[in-house]
Amino acid sequence: MSKVRLTMTMSLDGFVAGPNQSQRDPLGVGGEELHEWLITLKAFRERHGEKGGDVNASTPIAEQILGGVGATIMGRNMFGGGPGPWGDEAWSGYWGDDPPYHHPVFVLTRHPREPLELKGGTTFHFVTDGIESALEQARAAAEGEDVSLAGGANVVQQYLSAGLLDEMLISVVPLLLGGGARLFDNFEEPRPRLRQVEAVEAPGVTHIRYVRQP
Amino acid sequence: MSKVRLTMTMSLDGFVAGPNQSQRDPLGVGGEELHEWLITLKAFRERHGEKGGDVNASTPIAEQILGGVGATIMGRNMFGGGPGPWGDEAWSGYWGDDPPYHHPVFVLTRHPREPLELKGGTTFHFVTDGIESALEQARAAAEGEDVSLAGGANVVQQYLSAGLLDEMLISVVPLLLGGGARLFDNFEEPRPRLRQVEAVEAPGVTHIRYVRQP
Repeated sequence: MSKVRLTMTMSLDGFVAGPNQSQRDPLGVGGEELHEWLITLKAFRERHGEKGGDVNASTPIAEQILGGVGATIMGRNMFGGGPGPWGDEAWSGYWGDDPPYHHPVFVLTRHPREPLELKGGTTFHFVTDGIESALEQARAAAEGEDVSLAGGANVVQQYLSAGLLDEMLISVVPLLLGGGARLFDNFEEPRPRLRQVEAVEAPGVTHIRYVRQP
Repeated sequence: MSKVRLTMTMSLDGFVAGPNQSQRDPLGVGGEELHEWLITLKAFRERHGEKGGDVNASTPIAEQILGGVGATIMGRNMFGGGPGPWGDEAWSGYWGDDPPYHHPVFVLTRHPREPLELKGGTTFHFVTDGIESALEQARAAAEGEDVSLAGGANVVQQYLSAGLLDEMLISVVPLLLGGGARLFDNFEEPRPRLRQVEAVEAPGVTHIRYVRQP
């Protein structure tokens, strides 16, 4: 069966976004620095139609992150547009006209909304009946490929606690953000048990892969 | 000049000790699990007079942790005995008659006390005039070897914030402790800046070395 996987960059002090997230600073203050290891890569730049870039030990990791995924699940905050019901001029996401997903994306929200089809094969579907339902729809849409959890932290915590997240690739960067969205938090007993399966040293980042223990 | 270095094992959710630390559970509930990668090593067991044990990618790391250190600094909580003035039957530490340090150890406390000399070359000195003074004394005692910061988290934060910590080797283990002593916390602006210099994959742990950026 296809896996449910998470690939996320975390500061050394545990944050996946900096403090004071806003429409202007979707990743919070200082949060953009988290992904420097990724956005400087040739593998990333090519996918965004840009030339040049680095090839290093992060390259195969980035290719894994960007490939083999048939559907994505994200929280409402990550899609953006603030809380509450969708307005008349509904927010079409942080991701522009041609989002980098190129497959169906399922957005967890309490507020129903028609699907939003954008260029390049990305359609946002708005799921109001919970994380299991979103996963079921994402699995069906992924057609045998993996389902990626895009975040944010709260959505990851829900899937991890429910035992629905199979694999995590955590990219630890040498940043101290001092505040923001903490990735590993709010776990109830029994806490999820993980096993480390791989660690990769790369310039400015260490990628560690974990799988869920039964 | 000799370096000031920290070697510490941290759970994936950022804790170096579990919740509810006590004399019975000095590392908090679940905290003992943090160091499984270390205590199963031949290099560790030999130092404690035991036979057998594993040799793996953590072995050189353990040898670095255990070697080349001429003095250690630790907080009062790590020495133990609870807060407040030392009683008549003064606590002689969690470390037994023959502590594993074999060099001078400087304990940060607000309560003066005569040095405590134990077997095997370990003498605990109690420093009441702050972290700079403890470092100065430790450097002198180390006679050119490195000074090790043993913890706890609060002491590490003080040295890191003051720009006095040169190098950190953080061993990240696939545990979610859910609470306890958080290592990277309480930083003021400007926050310390770090550079990753090495990452080592080993069974059940990833060792990442950072140096302080000026």
